[in-house]
This record gives sequence, structure tokens and C-alpha cells, in this order.
Amino acid sequence: MTQLETVSTWKCHGGVQGVYRHLSHETGTEMTFAVFVPPRPGPRPAVTYLSGLTCTHANVMEKGEYRKAAAELGLIVVCPDTSPRGPAAPDDPAYDLGQGAGFYLDAVEEPWAARFRMESYVARELPALIAEHFPVDAGRQGLFGHSMGGHGALTLALRNPGLWRSISAFAPIVAPTQVPWGRKAFAAYLGADARRWREHDAVALIEDGRRLEELLVDVGDADAFLDRELKPELLETACASAGIPLTLRRQGGYDHSYFFISTFMADHLAWHAERLG
Amino acid sequence: MTQLETVSTWKCHGGVQGVYRHLSHETGTEMTFAVFVPPRPGPRPAVTYLSGLTCTHANVMEKGEYRKAAAELGLIVVCPDTSPRGPAAPDDPAYDLGQGAGFYLDAVEEPWAARFRMESYVARELPALIAEHFPVDAGRQGLFGHSMGGHGALTLALRNPGLWRSISAFAPIVAPTQVPWGRKAFAAYLGADARRWREHDAVALIEDGRRLEELLVDVGDADAFLDRELKPELLETACASAGIPLTLRRQGGYDHSYFFISTFMADHLAWHAERLG
Repeated sequence: MTQLETVSTWKCHGGVQGVYRHLSHETGTEMTFAVFVPPRPGPRPAVTYLSGLTCTHANVMEKGEYRKAAAELGLIVVCPDTSPRGPAAPDDPAYDLGQGAGFYLDAVEEPWAARFRMESYVARELPALIAEHFPVDAGRQGLFGHSMGGHGALTLALRNPGLWRSISAFAPIVAPTQVPWGRKAFAAYLGADARRWREHDAVALIEDGRRLEELLVDVGDADAFLDRELKPELLETACASAGIPLTLRRQGGYDHSYFFISTFMADHLAWHAERLG
Repeated sequence: MTQLETVSTWKCHGGVQGVYRHLSHETGTEMTFAVFVPPRPGPRPAVTYLSGLTCTHANVMEKGEYRKAAAELGLIVVCPDTSPRGPAAPDDPAYDLGQGAGFYLDAVEEPWAARFRMESYVARELPALIAEHFPVDAGRQGLFGHSMGGHGALTLALRNPGLWRSISAFAPIVAPTQVPWGRKAFAAYLGADARRWREHDAVALIEDGRRLEELLVDVGDADAFLDRELKPELLETACASAGIPLTLRRQGGYDHSYFFISTFMADHLAWHAERLG
């Protein structure tokens, strides 16, 4: 059995919220993640939440308000970190590159390639570890996320069909090749080759023939990053052309913060629970 | 109108969560507090939440999970700081004395007396300020809190009859004169006179004839401070002798953290809303 260290556990909303640490073979670093197990017996469906720039597992664990709904719906909620961290991983002084900004891809450029393997970590290593240590029904898994983590949910689901049966996002970056956050990160992690960039861009992946069964996206119309970084209209167009049923809700007055996410968290969990059976 | 600076506002669960700052005439310092206004027109009942040791307004605002229930119940939620702060206020290196540890009383000893006036702040200055700036129905107010803030809710309600119509607490310090946290703080803020101490001890106040109409208290049976600092059985005995209807719930497996508080937050808000009409 793969070694897993329990950092903390707390009883909450009848279930158990834990924080765990393990030595990742993908990143070569210790990775910390949070798991909530609801108070319901037997194998349960699981949803993985991918956080945005600068976040660790802790932001959504503390501010996401997911436990009440997850307890009622019987969902396991898994919250990984956004990158490898610590002295053994490369970094950059900017908040939007390096530690805290892994963009859920496997980097090919130096100095990132050896450690920044967040796609392999989230799509393969972490689900296997979770299945080993938690009462999860591995056939019923969903993926969602916020901002950079919304990008992660969309691209990982488009690139890895069959792994997750339900996908949603809060204020996702939908076309990283067309916006400053994405262009900066992709140049650093993937290099100059534009074909590589398209393979990690949700809108481009859809244009290039990848498909999702269905998609729920919420975005606040007072989000300061809406026009410059998020551009949900590009996803709307791509999904319409591809025939992907997209429920895109522009939420009046909401911004990019966890005050927005926590407001619609229960909606997203219910949406996943319905699709995960 | 008293000046009030808006630090931040966010739309959340249909209402507005704000953080505000003002120059307090009681503490002589700038005080920061949080207010949530639910999406319902007209004057609304308000509950004030008093936080525990080390907390600012932000801990419960981020981790308390009160907004969904408050929005549904139409309650304003006010979250003050636990003491004056900054270079103009005295402090102590310990976490349980000085800044972050005001114990909701007006200190009489030096160096605390001039600034540490948290009873006058919470019972008089802050409610007047809130009534001036927010759509609150001043006749329908409740008070609750956690740990040191549970002590604050109990003692302020016992000492100021008629100000708050509903009182509850999470894991309160009920007999500070009998436990280490309270004895340390009371010696520093109130000096050696034991009569003064009894005037800020919920169990002693009840023994000395003060009354509450009714009381809800939750405490986790896995709370690490239960036997040494909280001693809910002393409140149980005092309320039984005094004929105060106390609902004391020992919650199995819960500790002293916001994972415990957030689990029972909606229950407490519903309890207050029912009594505030």
C-alpha cells in the first residue's frame, strides 16, 4: 500500500475532513491534499476540486462551504494542491508562475519539467492513491475547479475521456492560449511550439474534436478577470459549434472570490451527484 | 453620522458581506468588523457573533459558514474583533492576553484600562454604529459566540438585560474565575479583587441572581479544552439551580475548531431567528 501520512482530521457536518501528505512519484516532492468523507457507508462517488492560482488545498477547505452539501449528497470531496512546493521544486517570484501556478499540465521545458507534472498527478497518481485509502467508487468520479482550476477541470476531462463522468467549473480560464495568464504559463512550461499549447486549451481542444458530455459553468458578471482572462463567450461559441450541452450562468454581482464560489458550491455538488448516480 | 470606512464588500449567497473600519471612541483605536446583510428588504433582526482567542472578524467570516442560513432566515450577522489592535494598544506576547484576547470586559488595571473596553464597545458603541449604517431592527437583536466569545455572549447578556433577545454559544468559557484562561486574563485586566471577577463570570453572575430567558449551547465532546477551560457542567448546574432553560448539546466527536462551529452554525441561526421573530 502506498504510504500516506495523516496531517489532521476533524469531524465536520457528520463526516470527516482530513488533510494528508505523501511523497509523489510524479512530482518528486511531498504533496498535501484534503479529503472530506461524508457520513454514509459503502463506496461513494467522489468529486475532485482543482483550485486557482496561489491556492493550496486549504483555501477551498476553509472557505468553499462544500461539506454540508457533500454530507447530504454522500459525496467524497478531494482537494489537491495547485503545484509541487518547497525547496526541491523550481519557482518564480510572480504569483502566476511556478509554485501555486501549475496549470494542471506536465511541463516539458526546463527548469519545470521534472517536478511540474500536475496532469499526471491529478489524472493518475492521486486517483489511484485515493482509491487505495478512501471508500471511493472509482467508477463514479467528477471533476471541477475554479479559475486556473476550472481550466484544469475542462482540459483534463477533454484530454482524458472516461476518467470523470461529470465536469463543472467556477469562472474558468477557457482559452489560455488567448489570455495573459495562460500565455505566460504555457510559454514557460510548454515552450514556443503552438501545437503544444492547443493541447492544453479547452476551447482549442473542443475545436480540434475533443468532446464532453455536458458542462456546468458559473461566472460572476462582476469578476475583475472576466474580459481579460476568462472570456466565457469563447467557451460558449466552441460548445455551440461542437454540440456540447453547456449550462453557462452569468451570476449578477458576483466576483472571482470564494464568496462567489461558496454561493454556488451546493448547486455544483448537486449537479455532480445527480450525474454520478 | 459616525464615520465608517468600507474596506471591502462582496456579494455572497444573494446578500452583501462587508468589512468596515471606524475610529472607536471606546478603544481609541481603529476597529474593524464584518457585517452580512441578507437579500431581504426592510429592517431585519441582527445577531452579533463574538469570536474566540486570537481571532479577528475574519475567522468566522471565512470559516463560519453562516451566510447561506442567514440569507434564508433574513438575519444580519455582525462580527466584531476580539480586542483593540495595533501599536496604539498595549499587548502581551502570549496568545491568551492582550491583543486578540479582550475577554469582552472593560479593563480597570494598567496598561489595559484605556484601550481594552470591549464590553462598552460590543454592548453600546457597536450596536449604535450598526443601527446608524445598516437596515437593522434594533429591537430584535441576538448575541452568540465561541469559546472566549461564548463567555462574552453569556456575560454581556447577563450584565445587560434587554439588549439582546436571544443568546447562544459554541464551546463557551462559562466560569472564567475557575479556569486558567480566565484567571490569567482577569488578574491582568481586573486586578486582585475577586468581587470584580465574579461580575464577569457567567456561572457566578447566575449564582448572584442574574438571569437569561433561555440558552442554547453546543460543545464537542472531543474538544481539547473541555475539562480544563470550558467545564459546561458548571453552567448546567447553575442554570438548573436558577431555573434558566438551558439546551446543552454535547456533540459526539467534535473539537474546538471552526469545523465544529460551521457544522452547527445554521442550527444556532435558526434558533435566534425563531426568537427574534
